[in-house]
Amino acid sequence: MAQAISELGEFGLIRHLTRNIRTVQPSTVKGIGDDAAILRYGDATLAVTTDTLTEGIHFDLTYTPMQHLGYKAAVVAFSDLYAMNVTPRQLLVSIAVSAKFSVESLELLYQGLQHACEHYGADLAGGDTSPSLTGFCINVTAIGDVAPDRITYRHTAQQGDLLCVSGDLGAAYMGLQVLDREKKIFEESKGIQPQLEGYEYVVGRQLKPEARKDIVEWLTSADIKPTAMIDLSDGLASGVLQLCSASKTGCEIHHHKIPIADETIKTAEEFYMEPLVAALNGGDDYELLFTVPVAAVEKLDGHKEISILGYLTEPEKGCFLVPQNGDKIEIKGMNV
Amino acid sequence: MAQAISELGEFGLIRHLTRNIRTVQPSTVKGIGDDAAILRYGDATLAVTTDTLTEGIHFDLTYTPMQHLGYKAAVVAFSDLYAMNVTPRQLLVSIAVSAKFSVESLELLYQGLQHACEHYGADLAGGDTSPSLTGFCINVTAIGDVAPDRITYRHTAQQGDLLCVSGDLGAAYMGLQVLDREKKIFEESKGIQPQLEGYEYVVGRQLKPEARKDIVEWLTSADIKPTAMIDLSDGLASGVLQLCSASKTGCEIHHHKIPIADETIKTAEEFYMEPLVAALNGGDDYELLFTVPVAAVEKLDGHKEISILGYLTEPEKGCFLVPQNGDKIEIKGMNV
Repeated sequence: MAQAISELGEFGLIRHLTRNIRTVQPSTVKGIGDDAAILRYGDATLAVTTDTLTEGIHFDLTYTPMQHLGYKAAVVAFSDLYAMNVTPRQLLVSIAVSAKFSVESLELLYQGLQHACEHYGADLAGGDTSPSLTGFCINVTAIGDVAPDRITYRHTAQQGDLLCVSGDLGAAYMGLQVLDREKKIFEESKGIQPQLEGYEYVVGRQLKPEARKDIVEWLTSADIKPTAMIDLSDGLASGVLQLCSASKTGCEIHHHKIPIADETIKTAEEFYMEPLVAALNGGDDYELLFTVPVAAVEKLDGHKEISILGYLTEPEKGCFLVPQNGDKIEIKGMNV
Repeated sequence: MAQAISELGEFGLIRHLTRNIRTVQPSTVKGIGDDAAILRYGDATLAVTTDTLTEGIHFDLTYTPMQHLGYKAAVVAFSDLYAMNVTPRQLLVSIAVSAKFSVESLELLYQGLQHACEHYGADLAGGDTSPSLTGFCINVTAIGDVAPDRITYRHTAQQGDLLCVSGDLGAAYMGLQVLDREKKIFEESKGIQPQLEGYEYVVGRQLKPEARKDIVEWLTSADIKPTAMIDLSDGLASGVLQLCSASKTGCEIHHHKIPIADETIKTAEEFYMEPLVAALNGGDDYELLFTVPVAAVEKLDGHKEISILGYLTEPEKGCFLVPQNGDKIEIKGMNV
């Protein structure tokens, strides 16, 4: 009987499909299994990453301005590179678009792409468009370089390392809830305009996320090399499980150390949701999850946008959330 | 008033969207405007290309085996690299897929991708899958390297150069007509099985095309460096117009020099079509169109799969087809 994709989950599926693939080219340093492929050509070490965003899954064009979509698509790719400590240099974009789109809307998309490239210091170096009979689909490929001894993989964390995260979590997910609610109200009662006042932060995190270039640069300037790093595109739980699984460790995360913005908490309460659920399972944060040796703790204390969540344990102990009171809770992710 | 995409055509659209883009990174040698972006990192010269294939536009899953689709997707990307005289080294694949697909069908797709990678000597070095609410969409990114003095751009042809093409043209297009006809018959009268006997060559060219690695290698071994080169994915007319427009030349092509296989001619006649129309406007040939100095003519005569179509002229003369009898016909392409 045919096996359904849903039985494996997104990450399980790609692991399954690529389980027998071996690389033979001397220029392939690291193939499938991290945020980006690492290549070595001559004396240069490069990383290449590719991501596809599809209409209705990754974005809803009823409330996503095309400029923001372009910006976000570039950020998604750059974030994958920063997670490996790689500096983005080029972006290639391939879009499949139905005839219903106007040239002007695609101009806005390209303005957003170009704006992101300028902000992150990369060139828009390639692009093509092709027709689509169904939805809008945008693929971004980002290329960058890195000093070989500065690459941060996700499989190289050590037991005892501290687990850290940048920024705050769950905001983009709550922004999505607000946008979906306002869309529904707008559709049901045509006269009512979307009410986004008081939700600027969470909505902004959803529509126009940033990659944490600043964090990567600060870590370098502070002479801290993470032992492992991954970007959070699918929630903290998914990121933690991927990093720990790749590094063959367990972890303990202190519940009260997970950074959640006030507006995220307020919005979650309005939706009768636990803010922690948004942080653990909500996507699109594009914060960096990374590990450092315990000795780095004093240096990290100097950065107000880095939180130490906990530490890595033996693999057989599993991944756990530790509340201030009560029993430990095992972290499970649908997609890992 | 909003401008429709169709007013610009596919190539006009991407030219329009990217007209103001300038590259600033020292590592970007050549950005938008050729088959692939050319990058220089350290002492290495690389090329990167990306292509998106969407269901219903680039392939019809009712008659395209998933293995062949995977193989073809890889070939499309490799062909872009060979057109710049670049050797493919890595392939990254990103697919967006609806839940209706089985794991087994995606395994077949990956077998096809892997098969093409082995055949062309590249590593499958990255991949991801994401959900799709609508059709199936596959994006391929290929990376390779080249000696800097061996890169073949499309904008560097000279007036007086000979215009050459590999293989034969129009077969893939006629294969598509046969497959579409058999699909229609099958749908209208359920019992009747597709009849593909006698169409093996044209159907094979459509479903499982090859990139002309052999031609590129032969040219190198024969010490012929094309002055310009492009791969034919959208018909000879489109390729000729793109090469001549980029190189600022016109051209004259001798009608009777355009290589068309016997089976292509026979199939076209069955469909009451001019075989020449299939060669000029039919897509998916993945043959190489290239130019060489006149002095190379003797060397080229030694290769039975290379045809000399004509030569390049002054730009103001335009691009023309020259029949054996009768007036010259201007070459126009919808998409250029």
